[in-house]
Amino acid sequence: MKNIIVGQSGGPTAVINSSVAGVYKKAKELGIEKVYGMVYGIEGFLAENILDLDEYLADDNNIELLKRTPSAFLGSCRYKLPKYEDAKDIYEKIFKILDKYEIDALFYIGGNDSMDTIKMLSDYAKNNNKKQLFMGIPKTIDNDLPITDHCPGYGSSAKYIATSIKEIIRDNASFGVKKPTICIVEIMGRHAGWLTAAAALAKDESCEGVDAIYLPEIPFDLNKFIKKVERLSQEKKSVVIAVSEGIADKDGKFICEYGSEGKKTDAFGHKQLSGCAKVLADAISSKTGLKTRAVELSTLQRSANHIASLTDIEEAMQVGAKAVEGAADGKTGMMVVMERKNTKKYEIQYNLYDIHSIANIEKKVPREWICTKHNKLKDPYLKYVKPLIMGELMPVYKNGLPVHLVRK
Amino acid sequence: MKNIIVGQSGGPTAVINSSVAGVYKKAKELGIEKVYGMVYGIEGFLAENILDLDEYLADDNNIELLKRTPSAFLGSCRYKLPKYEDAKDIYEKIFKILDKYEIDALFYIGGNDSMDTIKMLSDYAKNNNKKQLFMGIPKTIDNDLPITDHCPGYGSSAKYIATSIKEIIRDNASFGVKKPTICIVEIMGRHAGWLTAAAALAKDESCEGVDAIYLPEIPFDLNKFIKKVERLSQEKKSVVIAVSEGIADKDGKFICEYGSEGKKTDAFGHKQLSGCAKVLADAISSKTGLKTRAVELSTLQRSANHIASLTDIEEAMQVGAKAVEGAADGKTGMMVVMERKNTKKYEIQYNLYDIHSIANIEKKVPREWICTKHNKLKDPYLKYVKPLIMGELMPVYKNGLPVHLVRK
Repeated sequence: MKNIIVGQSGGPTAVINSSVAGVYKKAKELGIEKVYGMVYGIEGFLAENILDLDEYLADDNNIELLKRTPSAFLGSCRYKLPKYEDAKDIYEKIFKILDKYEIDALFYIGGNDSMDTIKMLSDYAKNNNKKQLFMGIPKTIDNDLPITDHCPGYGSSAKYIATSIKEIIRDNASFGVKKPTICIVEIMGRHAGWLTAAAALAKDESCEGVDAIYLPEIPFDLNKFIKKVERLSQEKKSVVIAVSEGIADKDGKFICEYGSEGKKTDAFGHKQLSGCAKVLADAISSKTGLKTRAVELSTLQRSANHIASLTDIEEAMQVGAKAVEGAADGKTGMMVVMERKNTKKYEIQYNLYDIHSIANIEKKVPREWICTKHNKLKDPYLKYVKPLIMGELMPVYKNGLPVHLVRK
Repeated sequence: MKNIIVGQSGGPTAVINSSVAGVYKKAKELGIEKVYGMVYGIEGFLAENILDLDEYLADDNNIELLKRTPSAFLGSCRYKLPKYEDAKDIYEKIFKILDKYEIDALFYIGGNDSMDTIKMLSDYAKNNNKKQLFMGIPKTIDNDLPITDHCPGYGSSAKYIATSIKEIIRDNASFGVKKPTICIVEIMGRHAGWLTAAAALAKDESCEGVDAIYLPEIPFDLNKFIKKVERLSQEKKSVVIAVSEGIADKDGKFICEYGSEGKKTDAFGHKQLSGCAKVLADAISSKTGLKTRAVELSTLQRSANHIASLTDIEEAMQVGAKAVEGAADGKTGMMVVMERKNTKKYEIQYNLYDIHSIANIEKKVPREWICTKHNKLKDPYLKYVKPLIMGELMPVYKNGLPVHLVRK
C-alpha cells in the first residue's frame, strides 16, 4: 500500500482519536507513505476536505495529546451513503478522489451506520474491479455492535458514568431529611442498555450504589416505577435511580415523549431521545409530592476524556492498528472485532470479521443479565464490564486544565 | 479547649471535607482531646447525632481519602436557626448539648445562611455569659461570601466547569455541518455569576472557548440573545454558550420561569432555579429553526471531586485550621477570610473577620469585570480566577473508580 486514509463518523467518543493514533502508528511502522485524514468523515472526503496526518502526528508528543483529546479530532459526520443504484455519481466521485491521492485503503471509525458505508463501498469495489480496500474500525459508546465482545468508547463512558454516579450518590445522600430527594439520572444508549447498565458499577466498598436501573431492553411501566420509588423513599434517606434515555412502555412509546410533541429525527431517521428523567421526576413529584431532581449526563458521557479508561484507550489504538494490518494483508470489507479470551486474566484477541454480518445490527444487553424483579444487573454483566474501565491516563494539564490536540 | 465540634451545612462542594480534615489535624496538633462531628449539621446536632472523628481520622490514610471525597462526609442540612426571641428552647438545648459533651468551640462550614447561624449563636453566648466559642469556615461553590477574596469550593467547581466545557466544545465542533448545533450550557450560582464566569477559562491555546457568557448580574434580553445566536450561527461551525441558572429579565423574572409555573422554594425561601438552558434552546429552535442542545451541568459541578483543584483542597484545609487557631486564641463570632497578597506569585493570607459583616450578604461579580457588548469576562476576572484552579490531586483508584471515605 502506498497511501491510506482514515475517517471518523457518527457520535464522537472519548477514545475515537486513539484509533486514529493506532492507524497512523501502525501505518508508519509498515512503511506506508501518506496517512491522510478525512475532515468531517465521508461527507468531507466528498468535498476533498483531506489532511496529511504527518502535519500533526509526526511529533510523538502530539500522539500522546491526541489520545487525551475527546471527540473527533478529524471531525465527524452523520452522512448516509445512498445505495449505488440511487447515486452512481457519488460512488464514482469517491473512487476518483481515492485514485487522485493514490489511496489504497480507506479506514472508517464508527458504529452501525458507518459500517454500512464500509459494506457498500467494499461491495462496490469488488463488483467493479476496484483495487481499493475498505476496513471498519469499531467505535461507539453505545456498545451495540454485534460479534465484537465490546466496542472501544464504551469502557470510558462506563467509567465516566460510574464515577459521576458515585459522586451524585454522595451528593444526594448529604441531607439527613426524612423524605429523601429522588434523583433520576438519565443515561444515553438509545435502544441498547449498555451505558445505563454501567450505573451498576457505582456499587462498591465505598458506595451503596444506585437503587434501581431501567434499561430499554425491558418495557417500562410508569405505575410500577412510581410504586417502587414510594417504597424506596420510605426505606432510605437517599434514592438515586438510573434510567436509559431510550426506555419505552409496552406499546413502544418512549417515556421521553410522554406529554410532549413527537421528537425530531436525524439524518438516519433516528429519533432524538432525551428528557425522560425530567418526565419521570415530574411524574414522581405530582403523584407523590416527593422532592425530585433530574440529571442528564448529556454529551459529557461521550466526551469526558479527562477520566477515560486506559484499557479503552489502548484497545482503541489496537483496533486501529489491526485494521491496517488487515489491509496490508489484502483484506477488505471487514471490521475489527475483539474476542475475549477464556483466560483468568482479562485478555483480548483482535480479529477481522465480514462486515455484512455487522452493519445495521444492534446488540442489546442479554435478557439473562437483567434482574427485572429488583431492576438491577446480574453478576455476569459486572464480570463483563469491570475489566473495561480499568486504568487511567493522566491528562496533560496546563494552567490547571487538560490540553487537547486541535486541528488548525 | 478540651473538646470541639465541627459541622457542615448547606449545599456540598468537592472540598468541604478538606475543611473537616483541616479542623481535625490542627485540633490534634494543639492537643485538643475530642473532635466531634455533627451528623447532618445543626439539625443533627439538635438530635444529638454526633460522632467522634477519631473513629475515622485517627488513620492518616483516611484523611487522604477524606480530601478525595465529595459532598458532606458528616452530612449537611438546610436548617434555618430561628431568632432567639422565637425559640429560646432551641438555644438552651444547643448549649445543654455543648455542656454535656464538654465542647468549648463549635465550627460551622458553610455559606451565607450557615454564617447567620454562627452569628446568632455567638451573639447569644456573649449576651448570656456562655464560654463556648463559635467560628465560621467559608464554603460555597457560589463564591458569593463578602470580604474573603474567594470561597473554598469555588476553585474546584470552576475547574470542573472549564474542563467540562472544553470537552463539550470539542464535542459540539465534531460535525462540519453548515448550520451548527447551538449548545446552551446551564451553570449554577443563583444570583451571583461567579460559577458561570468560570466558563471563560475554557478559552486557551487548545480551545476557542465559549461564544458568549450570560451572568445574572446583567438583565437578560431574550430578543437580543436570539439575534446574537443567529449571527453566531452564520459565522461559526459550532456555537457554545454558557448561561447562569439565575439569569432574569429587566423586570426580574427568571428565564427558567418563562412558560412554566412559579418555582418551588426551599427552607430559606430560595427559589429552585433550573431549566433556563432548556427554555433558551426551545426558544432558539422555534424562532430560528436552528438545532439546539441544552446541557445542565447539574449537581456534578459541586460534587466532581475527581477533578478537584489542589489549590482549592489545600485552601479548604487551611481555612479549617485557621478557625481552630482562632478559637484557641479565644476568638468567637468570626469567619476565616482569605486575603490575596499583592505579590507577583499568588499567595493567600488567612485572617479572621467579624461574622456580622458577612452573614446574609451576597457578593456578586464586579460590573467592571463583565463585557456586556460581547457577553464575555474581562481580563481582571481571568487574572482573579486562574490561580484558583491550579493543581490536581489524583483520586485513589480501586477497580477503575475513585474511592471515597463514607460514614458507617
